[in-house]
Amino acid sequence: MTDLEIAQAAKLEPISKIASLIGLSDDDIEPYGKYKAKINPIDFNEAIPASHKLVLVTSINPTPAGEGKSTVLVGLGDALTQLNHKTIIAMREPSMGPVMGMKGGATGGGYSQVVPMEDINLHFTGDMHALTSANNTLAALIDNYLLHDNQLDIDPRRIIWKRVLDINDRALRQIVTGMGGVSQGVVRQTGFEITAASELMAILCLATDLSDLKRRISNIVIGYNTDKQPVTVGQLHFEDAITILLKEALKPNLVQTLGHTPTIIHGGPFANIAHGCNSVLATKTALNLADYTVTEAGFGADLGAEKFLDIKRPILGKTPDTVVVVATVRALKYNGGQPLEQLENENLVALENGFANLQRHLDNMNRYQIPVVVSINHFTSDTKAELDLLKSYCERQGIEAVVTDSWANGGSGTIALAHQVVTATQQPNKFTPLYNSEESLTDKLTTIVTDVYGGSEVTLSKKAQRQLQQFADFGWQGLPVCIAKTQYSFSDDPHLLGAPTDFTIHIREFIPKIGAGFIVALAGNILTMPGLPKKPAALNMHIDADGKVTGLF
Amino acid sequence: MTDLEIAQAAKLEPISKIASLIGLSDDDIEPYGKYKAKINPIDFNEAIPASHKLVLVTSINPTPAGEGKSTVLVGLGDALTQLNHKTIIAMREPSMGPVMGMKGGATGGGYSQVVPMEDINLHFTGDMHALTSANNTLAALIDNYLLHDNQLDIDPRRIIWKRVLDINDRALRQIVTGMGGVSQGVVRQTGFEITAASELMAILCLATDLSDLKRRISNIVIGYNTDKQPVTVGQLHFEDAITILLKEALKPNLVQTLGHTPTIIHGGPFANIAHGCNSVLATKTALNLADYTVTEAGFGADLGAEKFLDIKRPILGKTPDTVVVVATVRALKYNGGQPLEQLENENLVALENGFANLQRHLDNMNRYQIPVVVSINHFTSDTKAELDLLKSYCERQGIEAVVTDSWANGGSGTIALAHQVVTATQQPNKFTPLYNSEESLTDKLTTIVTDVYGGSEVTLSKKAQRQLQQFADFGWQGLPVCIAKTQYSFSDDPHLLGAPTDFTIHIREFIPKIGAGFIVALAGNILTMPGLPKKPAALNMHIDADGKVTGLF
Repeated sequence: MTDLEIAQAAKLEPISKIASLIGLSDDDIEPYGKYKAKINPIDFNEAIPASHKLVLVTSINPTPAGEGKSTVLVGLGDALTQLNHKTIIAMREPSMGPVMGMKGGATGGGYSQVVPMEDINLHFTGDMHALTSANNTLAALIDNYLLHDNQLDIDPRRIIWKRVLDINDRALRQIVTGMGGVSQGVVRQTGFEITAASELMAILCLATDLSDLKRRISNIVIGYNTDKQPVTVGQLHFEDAITILLKEALKPNLVQTLGHTPTIIHGGPFANIAHGCNSVLATKTALNLADYTVTEAGFGADLGAEKFLDIKRPILGKTPDTVVVVATVRALKYNGGQPLEQLENENLVALENGFANLQRHLDNMNRYQIPVVVSINHFTSDTKAELDLLKSYCERQGIEAVVTDSWANGGSGTIALAHQVVTATQQPNKFTPLYNSEESLTDKLTTIVTDVYGGSEVTLSKKAQRQLQQFADFGWQGLPVCIAKTQYSFSDDPHLLGAPTDFTIHIREFIPKIGAGFIVALAGNILTMPGLPKKPAALNMHIDADGKVTGLF
Repeated sequence: MTDLEIAQAAKLEPISKIASLIGLSDDDIEPYGKYKAKINPIDFNEAIPASHKLVLVTSINPTPAGEGKSTVLVGLGDALTQLNHKTIIAMREPSMGPVMGMKGGATGGGYSQVVPMEDINLHFTGDMHALTSANNTLAALIDNYLLHDNQLDIDPRRIIWKRVLDINDRALRQIVTGMGGVSQGVVRQTGFEITAASELMAILCLATDLSDLKRRISNIVIGYNTDKQPVTVGQLHFEDAITILLKEALKPNLVQTLGHTPTIIHGGPFANIAHGCNSVLATKTALNLADYTVTEAGFGADLGAEKFLDIKRPILGKTPDTVVVVATVRALKYNGGQPLEQLENENLVALENGFANLQRHLDNMNRYQIPVVVSINHFTSDTKAELDLLKSYCERQGIEAVVTDSWANGGSGTIALAHQVVTATQQPNKFTPLYNSEESLTDKLTTIVTDVYGGSEVTLSKKAQRQLQQFADFGWQGLPVCIAKTQYSFSDDPHLLGAPTDFTIHIREFIPKIGAGFIVALAGNILTMPGLPKKPAALNMHIDADGKVTGLF
């Protein structure tokens, strides 16, 4: 059975029943269909109880072999539920762009899925669309201001606010707008990004409430005036209209797993081009309502977990009690040099070579001094010798590695991991941040590159150097850095697998995201608007007269 | 009190209660919040009973003075409900673009409103966003096909499929995409339209079910190959993916009026650049469930009603039993030459001059041989002399004119009109179509221009002439014509008010909408992407920390 078929065959509980499991009444939620709801703002008067545990699921660097991080996440949530722990899963909303491009959703797989998966992977409750609307309304207001007014002397060549669509559309990466004569606007070169890369997405995910959302929107720097000084949304007085467009999207979404674990899905920035974590509001809500909150961060621990710990954690005000690093035999063999088409074959040498990738991620988590558990996500092609080698390797690091069978057996296949996680969360947490906010942007960058990525140094383009000077003048030095980098390697070269050393990370440009509250550093050729492949997944999809969909995943 | 304040103060019934009023159970609907729902597909095995009446509300040409067509529509629905007639209002979804541009929503006004009006005027149930996504996914798939494949030899210069946003953004009217080198795509000049102008919007509004939706999407002509032959979505095999993106949007949306009349809001094409009617599916659903279905068509009767009767009616399979033409003393005086800033002053001469506009709309409806009622929508500045003059004028035409007070008094202010409408629907309906589908496109155009607009002739640009020749070769002659024209005048010049004669309508270009099943004829300088004004309405909007919105309308 395909993931979609398993999901379509599932018997779901009414969403009000799921809400009641975590103490939410019908007045606390707004239903969106029978199996989805938005959670209305809740006043949590007290601090999150210390007994409420936060578990962060991350992984080794992703490979074409597949790691199944979301599948383990969902399986772990269901396993904790089976062990009678009050559990909420908090995860990100899928982007529709990749759904049409590459076969595969973002709601787990097999018997560890969040449902209704079709809805969640398509329009869901409209958050992505609200963000697209808000982002592009702001862009239209800016271009309109240029045409009619421009009292602030915005330089059309220095506008950094781009338009977005939740679509993989490379033809929109670089465009010229405002053509057709004087009355059509001001001609300028600009482009579209994918909605997940919008600063508004980051803001939605980091805002602690509606007032904070509006404050952050006001702080967005949309470009520079002819004196090269930053111009904000607040100076243009557009913050209220944009906030109004996002007021419903700010409410976290409640769904369920196949095992009926309440799941909050909210916010979906990519971890390669943004900070890669679901919303602070969703995670906070979960932490208040559940004994165990199981959440994830995008891509590998070098991107997602680093950004969770250095960007999201200070705002969330809660450090993970345990980090789960997901690895697979297949992906480690791929990292160890075995070609994709030979991953079905046992190869202990490649596996051993690939350990280096897992090792560096474990070292990094140890550096933050958070208890770590390794989840070996089982594939049918894994041999006993491979699994034993991997487990003994982890044992030598003093880390318990647990084989999980989340895809085939859901929560039941993840019980051992759940036990291990419960134990780990009881350990003392001596969290140590990677850097302090007072350090310079260069120092923060260097720390991430040398201490997390394992590189030797950071180089900056002329433009990036000039920008750093300006940012110091604008008072932006105290912000965290969000490196936009390939997810496939610790380096900025997607082909350097395993645990490369002696590499340089080259920053070609910085993008200030002052509303979100971080500085994006573009490393390598990272694109903020994906393209479609030659045979897009859209071609496999079918729908019959009754609305039954096949070929979606 | 503002419209928004009245709407916010209203006590709404739960949507399941509203559904039960028209015989729909909780299984028949999908709630979207507590006061909105989508109606699941219903099998209506029998034909619409002849006793179920359809009332079409239209108006004179719109003016800056305001006519209040939606307000009368809602008031009429509430009045029929008060008279214990089982009534459903069927209307269009507002476009968000104008909401940010020009203060004013599209859900009626005063005490004749549909609620929750804030939601309906913003993201509602996401139909507009689904259309935007589907439209732009198709565009991305086409550009991707050009880059990777193009076995069909599509000519990049002859692609007519544009991208859309539900935003007024003139800077996107004419753009160049695919810049940045070989790997970014094929450079070409294109543009964005507003979502309401998308062919997919027209298709959603004319499709009779999901299969018909897919069939129509397959038939969309996206452009021409290098042999100048049309290329369809079906040839590219994208129809299933696009249909999947629209499967929820195809379900009509249920809300309520302040008087708790069930209201189906679904589909929102503009009547100046598209066919201007809510969906066939929504109207059919209403006709099946209610004794009286009250619906509207966009702008004046020259655009909206003509397109309702010539494009929507043949697919709907039901002719309106009565047409209500809404007029105001103010708007007629404006049509009669009185300047906007003097409309508060009595002016019987201007009123008499302005009659000509109403007269021509009444003549047109008589031409279709449908019973007509005139609604004089009351404004406080109207004098008794003016109202008496207007009523006696209508009497001379053998038409009953009823003064309505829908804004101030809701359904109670519209009771007299309701009585008149009930009587009119009992009259024999000898509907006569304006043209037959077998006539040539030129003949259809000429008939609309001479018989409905009152013009003398149609002229075609060289390009339009060439297109007509090609369309005949492609077998498109049998389709109806949808003229894209200014709403302010019977002519294509927005400044020719009243009832101009001896004018020519110049068609600069045709746009084939083969999926929708009509040919758009662009008259005058009509734009398919609006712009924002110097002081956009967005600047008036405010939202407080509790999410309370002011200044929206």
